[in-house]
Amino acid sequence: MGWLANETGLDKCAANYVPLTPLSHLARAALVYPDREAVVYGARRFTYAEYHARVSRLASALAGAGIAPGDVVATLLPNIPAMVEAHFGVPACGAVLNTINIRLDVDTVAYILSHGGAKAVLVDSQFLPLAAEACERLDGPAPLLIEVADDAAGVHALGGYTEYEDFLAGGDPDFPWIMPRDEWESLALNYTSGTTGRPKGVVYHHRGAYLMTMGTVISWRMVLYPRWLAIVPLFHCNGWNHSWMMPMLGGTVVCCRDVSAQAIYTAIAENGVTHFGGAPIVLNMIVNAPDAARRPFSHTVEVFTAGAPPAAATLAAIEELGFNVTQVYGLTETYGHVTECVWNPDWDTLPQAERAAIKARQGVALPQMEHITVMDPEMRQVPMDGATTGEVMMRGNSVMKGYYRNPDATAEAFAGGYFHSGDIALQHPDGYIQIADRAKDIIISGGENISSVEVEGALMHHPAVLLCAVVAKPDPTWGEVPCAFVELKDGKTAEEAEIIAFARERLAGFKTPKKVVFTELPKTSTGKIQKFELRNRAKAL
Amino acid sequence: MGWLANETGLDKCAANYVPLTPLSHLARAALVYPDREAVVYGARRFTYAEYHARVSRLASALAGAGIAPGDVVATLLPNIPAMVEAHFGVPACGAVLNTINIRLDVDTVAYILSHGGAKAVLVDSQFLPLAAEACERLDGPAPLLIEVADDAAGVHALGGYTEYEDFLAGGDPDFPWIMPRDEWESLALNYTSGTTGRPKGVVYHHRGAYLMTMGTVISWRMVLYPRWLAIVPLFHCNGWNHSWMMPMLGGTVVCCRDVSAQAIYTAIAENGVTHFGGAPIVLNMIVNAPDAARRPFSHTVEVFTAGAPPAAATLAAIEELGFNVTQVYGLTETYGHVTECVWNPDWDTLPQAERAAIKARQGVALPQMEHITVMDPEMRQVPMDGATTGEVMMRGNSVMKGYYRNPDATAEAFAGGYFHSGDIALQHPDGYIQIADRAKDIIISGGENISSVEVEGALMHHPAVLLCAVVAKPDPTWGEVPCAFVELKDGKTAEEAEIIAFARERLAGFKTPKKVVFTELPKTSTGKIQKFELRNRAKAL
Ligand SMILES: Nc1ncnc2c1ncn2[C@@H]1O[C@H](COP(=O)(O)OP(=O)(O)OP(=O)(O)O)[C@@H](O)[C@H]1O
Ligand SMILES: Nc1ncnc2c1ncn2[C@@H]1O[C@H](COP(=O)(O)OP(=O)(O)OP(=O)(O)O)[C@@H](O)[C@H]1O
Ligand SMILES: [Mg+2]
Ligand SMILES: [Mg+2]
Repeated sequence: MGWLANETGLDKCAANYVPLTPLSHLARAALVYPDREAVVYGARRFTYAEYHARVSRLASALAGAGIAPGDVVATLLPNIPAMVEAHFGVPACGAVLNTINIRLDVDTVAYILSHGGAKAVLVDSQFLPLAAEACERLDGPAPLLIEVADDAAGVHALGGYTEYEDFLAGGDPDFPWIMPRDEWESLALNYTSGTTGRPKGVVYHHRGAYLMTMGTVISWRMVLYPRWLAIVPLFHCNGWNHSWMMPMLGGTVVCCRDVSAQAIYTAIAENGVTHFGGAPIVLNMIVNAPDAARRPFSHTVEVFTAGAPPAAATLAAIEELGFNVTQVYGLTETYGHVTECVWNPDWDTLPQAERAAIKARQGVALPQMEHITVMDPEMRQVPMDGATTGEVMMRGNSVMKGYYRNPDATAEAFAGGYFHSGDIALQHPDGYIQIADRAKDIIISGGENISSVEVEGALMHHPAVLLCAVVAKPDPTWGEVPCAFVELKDGKTAEEAEIIAFARERLAGFKTPKKVVFTELPKTSTGKIQKFELRNRAKAL
Repeated sequence: MGWLANETGLDKCAANYVPLTPLSHLARAALVYPDREAVVYGARRFTYAEYHARVSRLASALAGAGIAPGDVVATLLPNIPAMVEAHFGVPACGAVLNTINIRLDVDTVAYILSHGGAKAVLVDSQFLPLAAEACERLDGPAPLLIEVADDAAGVHALGGYTEYEDFLAGGDPDFPWIMPRDEWESLALNYTSGTTGRPKGVVYHHRGAYLMTMGTVISWRMVLYPRWLAIVPLFHCNGWNHSWMMPMLGGTVVCCRDVSAQAIYTAIAENGVTHFGGAPIVLNMIVNAPDAARRPFSHTVEVFTAGAPPAAATLAAIEELGFNVTQVYGLTETYGHVTECVWNPDWDTLPQAERAAIKARQGVALPQMEHITVMDPEMRQVPMDGATTGEVMMRGNSVMKGYYRNPDATAEAFAGGYFHSGDIALQHPDGYIQIADRAKDIIISGGENISSVEVEGALMHHPAVLLCAVVAKPDPTWGEVPCAFVELKDGKTAEEAEIIAFARERLAGFKTPKKVVFTELPKTSTGKIQKFELRNRAKAL
C-alpha cells in the first residue's frame, strides 16, 4: 500500500488529524459568520453567535442533568428551533440524538424509548401527553422530560416539567463541547419509517454525517448563504442531514412547524427561501394548492424530492411554478439521499415530457458514496439496458454503522460488502438507476413481475386522481393481481370502470388494475403510503 | 465518548467505510460524467471516459515497469495533460507522486531525487537534459526516465527513452486501481518552494487531499461543471489540489504550458474558463497586459490568489477587468490554501479602496480546517485588535503528515498541537487574519518591528512601480533599516529620492526605505520574490 519507505514521524497528531464531525461546522460558523442569521422561526431570529451560545447552553444543561457521553437523548419535536438546536447541542455533550417521529402512536413511541434507552426527551407541549403515556408503559426508569412550549404557535406549556428556555438558562453559553475522539463514535439513532414493519434503529456516526453534508453541497449545487426551509421532518434521517450542513455555508434554517402549501409559499416570499427538500406528496401539495395559498416570487427555488418515486405528471406540473426539482433517493440507513438524478445540460432542450421522464429517475451516486449500482442476487452487476431489474446496492461513507441491538439484521444488510437497499431497480445505458419498486411491493401476476410504481405512474396522469397506490391482491388464477387505491382531487369524481379503462390505454393488460377502491390513503408520518396496510385491505376485499 | 451502551455489530465494514482518497472522485466521474470534457490542451480533448482509461493505462504501465505501492514516482512536467494524468495514475498504482519544480537548478533536482528516492520520473522533453544531468549526480541507481514530448508546443522527443504515449499504449485501460486501505497512506511528496532555504519534503495523505477538495468547492463557491485553467503549477502543492477536485464536479481542466496574460485571456475567451488560481504576480501580469494580449469576455472569472500578499493596488485594478479575486492563504504544508478572505455581501457597497483593503486580508479558516488563529510564542490567542501580531497557527485535516525523513523538523512544526506557519500576522476584531510578514522577513529597526509587506504595499501605489521587495539592510545605528528593490514598468522611470519621498508620505519615518535599488527581482519558480537573495545583496551594498 501507499506507505513510503520511511514513515518515521509521519503519524497522526492533534495538528493534522481531527475526527470528522458536523459539530465542527457550527464551531467554525460561530467564528466566521457570527452575525449572520442562522435560524428563523416566525418573529424569532438567531445569529450564529446566538445559535452557538444556545447550543452550548443546551449541551451544558444536559451534562448538568446527568447526561453522560454515549447516553441517548430523544426528541418529540416538530421543526422548531429547539429541534434544530438539539442537532448540535445533544452531540456537543457527547450524547447520541434520537429524534422520534411525532406522528407515531404511543405504542411505537414506547417501543423506541425502550429500545433506544433514552435518558432524556425534549418534548413539544403538543406531544407531552403522548410522551408521558409512553413513559408510563416503560419497564425501566422513565427518562427526564423537558417540555418545549411554542407560544407563538399557540402551543403553551402544560407545566409539571422544566421548560426548555428555563433549561437553557441554567446552561453555560461557554460550555466546552465534548468533541468525538473517534469519528466512528455514534452521533444519532434514527428509527426507520416503519413502512415495511417494526422500525429499526439506525445508528449514524460523526464521520458519515460530516461527509453527507459535504456531498450534499455539491449535488444540490449550493453556494454560500442558502436559505433552507425545513420541511422534511428533522426526525426523518435528521432532515437528510441538512441542518448539520447549513453552518458550513453560513446558511439560514427557516423553521416550519406545520407543512402546507401556504406555509411554503409564505416562507419563499417572506423569508427568501432558496432550497428545501420534501417527499413527492409535498410537491403534490404545491401543485394542487388553491390560488389563495400561492404567493409570487421571482427566483428559482431548488427542491430535492425523495422518499417515494415522484410521478412524472407531478414533476411536469411543478416545473412551471418556479421550482427546479431534483430527484434524490436514499434510506434512513444512508443518512438520507445518496443518489441524485444529476442533470445534464444537454437535456435542457428536450421536450417537457422527456425531461420529466428523466427527472423521474433516481440517478447516480452522490460524491461521498463510493459505488451505487444494481445487482442480481449473486451480487453481479445487471446489464444496463433499461429493462433488467435487480436490487440497488451501495457502499460508501454515508452508510449507517448498523442497526442498534440487531447484529443479525446488520450482517444481513451488509452481506457481500454492500448495503442491500431492498429496492428493485433497473439501470439505463448511462448508468442512471430507476427504481421499479420495493422488493416487498412487487406484484407477481401469472409469473410476471409488475412494478406498482409503474402502474401508479400511469394512474397519476388521470385528471381526477390526486394520489394512488397499487398493491397485490391475492387471486386464485394469477396468484396476485394489481389492486388500486385512489384518492380523488377535491370536487372531482371518477368511476372504477373509467379508471381501469384509462389505465388499460397506457399499460399491458396484466399490469392493469383489476380492482379500484376510492379512499383516503393511509400514510406514514414521512408522507409515504403504507402499502402493508393497503395489502391487508386488498386481501379482505 | 459517544459510544452507545451496546455497540455490537456496529463496526466498520466494506459497505460503510471507504478510505477517503481523491481517486474516488475520478472513479465516480467516469461513471457519472463519462462523456463530459475532462481535460483540454490546445486541440487535444479528453472525456472523462478517456481520461479514466488513460489514467488506468498509466497506473498499469507503471506497475508493469516495477513500481510497487509506496514507491515514489516523480515528475518534471509543466501543466500539460501528462501532469494532470499523473495526479491520478501514480496513486492508482499505489505509488506516491513527487512533482518536482521544473524551474529548479540541477543541484536541487538531484537533491530532491536523492532525498525522495524516486523510482521513475516523467519528464517533459524540454527538461530531459536537466533530469539526465541530475540523475548522473545521484549516488544510488538512477530512476527510470519516461519522456513526455509535446509536439504541439514544438517540444519534440529527444529519444533514448520510452515516450509517454508509447508507455501508455503498453498499459491496460481496465487496470484495477490500487486504492488505499488506510486513508493515512501517503499520496504525494511535495518539496516546499525553498523561499527560506533548502526545500523540505512535505508528505500528503489521501484523506487530507480528499477533504481539501471538499472544502475548496465551498470556499470557491463552485457548482457543477466549472472550467478551471491550470495556471498554478501542478508541481506546487499539486496546484492547490484543484486537479483532484475537478472530477467531483464534472469540471474541465484547461492545461496551460506557459503562463502569460495572452494565454490567460485566450483561455477565457476560447475555452470559457470560469476559475483559476494564481500568485499575485499573475494578477499583475493581467493588469499590466498590453492591449494586444487582451480579449473580451462577458462572464466574471473567479480567481483565487495566494502565495504572497497581493498589493491592494493590484486588487483594485483587476476588479474592473471582469475578475473577482479572492485572497486565500496557505503553505505547501497545508495542501495549499486553508484560509480565505470570505466575502460578506454587506461589504459590496463600501468604497472601492475599502473593499480592496479588506480583500488584502488572508481571512478565516476553510471548512475542512478545524482552527486557524494567531498566537503568541506561549500558544496564547493574541488580542483581535487589528494591531497585535503573533504567529499563524493551524490545526485540521488538510495539514501534512510531516516532513519526509525529518522527524525533528516535523515535531518542531507541530509543537503544542498546532502547525506553526512561520508567518507573522494580526487579527481584526472579526477574526480575519492579516499577514504582516514571514517571521524571517520582519525588519527590526531601532527595536521596532517593520512589516516588509506593509512597506511594499505603499510602494506599489507608485505609478511607475511594477514590483518591489523590501528587506533588512544591516545598519550600525538602527540594527536594520528597510531597503527597497524595485522593478519598474516598461517605459517608466523613477528616481531613488522620488520613491523615498513617495513612501514617506504614506509611512512612518522609521518604516520608510533608506535605500532604493532599481533591478529585476529574483523570483522562485512559483512567482515569489527570493528575499534571502535580496538580503544578501542588501548586506553587500
Ligand atoms: N426517490 C425515491 N424514489 C423511490 N423510492 C424512494 C425514493 N427515496 C426513497 N424511497 C423509498 O424509501 C425507502 C427509504 O425510506 P425510509 O428509510 O425512510 O423508511 P422505510 O424504508 O419507508 O421504512 P422501513 O425500512 O421501516 O420499512 C427506500 O428504500 C425506497 O423504497
Ligand atoms: N495570501 C498570502 N499572503 C501572504 N503570504 C502568503 C499567502 N499565501 C502564501 N503566502 C506565503 O507563502 C508561504 C507558503 O509558501 P510555500 O509553502 O509555497 O513555500 P515557501 O514557504 O515559500 O518555501 P520554504 O518553506 O521552502 O521557505 C506562506 O508561509 C506565506 O509566507
Ligand atoms: Mg427501509
Ligand atoms: Mg514555508
